[in-house]
Amino acid sequence: MKLDDLYGPVQQDLDLVDETIDALRDVDYQPMAEMLDLVLVTRGKRLRPALALLAGKFGRYRLDLLVPLAAAIELLHTATLVHDDVIDNAATRRGRPTANSLLHNTTTVMLGDYMFAHAANFAAHTGNIEVIRLFSQTVMTIARGEIGQDMAAYDTRQTVRQYLQRIAGKTASLFAAACQGGALLTGASKDRVEALKDYGYNLGMAFQIVDDILDFVGDEQEMGKPVGSDLSQGTLTLPSLLLLDRYPKNNPIRNLFARRRRQECLSQAVEMICQSDIPRESYQMAHSFASEAVEALTALPRNAARRTLRDIVAYVLERRS
Amino acid sequence: MKLDDLYGPVQQDLDLVDETIDALRDVDYQPMAEMLDLVLVTRGKRLRPALALLAGKFGRYRLDLLVPLAAAIELLHTATLVHDDVIDNAATRRGRPTANSLLHNTTTVMLGDYMFAHAANFAAHTGNIEVIRLFSQTVMTIARGEIGQDMAAYDTRQTVRQYLQRIAGKTASLFAAACQGGALLTGASKDRVEALKDYGYNLGMAFQIVDDILDFVGDEQEMGKPVGSDLSQGTLTLPSLLLLDRYPKNNPIRNLFARRRRQECLSQAVEMICQSDIPRESYQMAHSFASEAVEALTALPRNAARRTLRDIVAYVLERRS
Repeated sequence: MKLDDLYGPVQQDLDLVDETIDALRDVDYQPMAEMLDLVLVTRGKRLRPALALLAGKFGRYRLDLLVPLAAAIELLHTATLVHDDVIDNAATRRGRPTANSLLHNTTTVMLGDYMFAHAANFAAHTGNIEVIRLFSQTVMTIARGEIGQDMAAYDTRQTVRQYLQRIAGKTASLFAAACQGGALLTGASKDRVEALKDYGYNLGMAFQIVDDILDFVGDEQEMGKPVGSDLSQGTLTLPSLLLLDRYPKNNPIRNLFARRRRQECLSQAVEMICQSDIPRESYQMAHSFASEAVEALTALPRNAARRTLRDIVAYVLERRS
Repeated sequence: MKLDDLYGPVQQDLDLVDETIDALRDVDYQPMAEMLDLVLVTRGKRLRPALALLAGKFGRYRLDLLVPLAAAIELLHTATLVHDDVIDNAATRRGRPTANSLLHNTTTVMLGDYMFAHAANFAAHTGNIEVIRLFSQTVMTIARGEIGQDMAAYDTRQTVRQYLQRIAGKTASLFAAACQGGALLTGASKDRVEALKDYGYNLGMAFQIVDDILDFVGDEQEMGKPVGSDLSQGTLTLPSLLLLDRYPKNNPIRNLFARRRRQECLSQAVEMICQSDIPRESYQMAHSFASEAVEALTALPRNAARRTLRDIVAYVLERRS
């Protein structure tokens, strides 16, 4: 299923969000405009802003408030990606190539800050203090999740539970905030706000787990990045934690982290994961969160938006990139 | 004059701001607590939060709102410094040592984001949409100013006018926002809000110009950093722009930027500036902004806060570090 078909009830409104974000490029300082072009040109799935709009369909749909919120959510996500691309000086720790290799580190950081500020400004445009606070608290949660991931890099003692906490912070929190924020802005009842937040959280968890599985079993062409890229940066995700668990000794991941024959170990780890039942077991965990997301929807009235939210769950599980 | 004496009417309330910021260290995730200790332990002059509180003395002084604002302003400033410390991979462009050399670049960025988010959250705690918007717009302005500075690095074609625009963005905007925000929160009249904003802007301009002069003529011990550090990073400030203007040919700055005998050229540039009337001329420009700041105060009622704001102008001009 294509996402473009999927967003049916909010597809057109999503274009307004795009236009709102695109308007950012219209700055009078040329170098800034070029940098913004660079980071805004390749937009992702627009899943998060779509969720914000869809969540608004369970109260009084206020497009004038939902568009700024959706823009804030999407821009926050993009700013996070920009900051993710800052390369560490310790090249052996995070020597990955970056989408922004045309920019210097310092400029990349400030560009991300500029986008964060715009995102916060869009959030402020909702005029809703509760939503504004939700927004800044979500930024905190995301940053804490990312720091946790950084701190846990190359640490083979971490548990699946810690992994789940981390992805709750760095990914699920924004999915939850998109849904909760959309619901709050449209005056949905407390029960519905909770149900949508719950849906968003569980969808986000499933989304990230699938992301982490695809990093091993996905097609490099479709993904646009090499397989095993998380592991090559020292980031342990569900599949690699399960592999560590099954082979406590002489594990290719331990050898990789000990910097022995890196490429060979990486290929070996990827192969072992792909040929095991680890992807299946990981998908089971994703399915379990997905079920929770679907379950949360039962508290909402049956309408086109609810059907779409359900279809999105299926898409997240089935997606190949 | 010592700043601690200077803040008289808001000295005690400033301690509340400190406590509010210090409470950030109280997180249950130990590595995070240690990082926050690292960046929050060395606090600066507390000039910006003092301005926010003092500006609140021209309306109905609402400490419950002013403390979150002052904390937001100070934390934003600290977050900016953290992000400033991200080192560029291109070591020839920005190879400076950093206060956070214990942290990796990527972690430093996320830590700064976390602090930005807290700052935004404090701003949200004022519950005042106008102030919240002022806050996010100020973050934008600062980021734009920093990007402008990055872009202009090593570019000897830039003008004093462009320099002034840059410092207006990266420094004066936050001084102005502190004053304007404090005034807005206490329901000061429109004229007073404007006067305080005007005061803050001009004070900030004077502050940054003096900062840039001290980078050449200051005492390394008092400053805590080597003289000429801006220039060594390719940042042209008022004194160096004036030197370029006076010696268009065979200028040590041009040689420095052409990477010829770097240390020698840097010392030569510093010496030429110190022995010329460039510091005096630069101070004249600082004085001119300072006069505007003092002039702006005339629109305000005579009270202890106004006297303090005037003393701060004198301090900013006289300070040696």
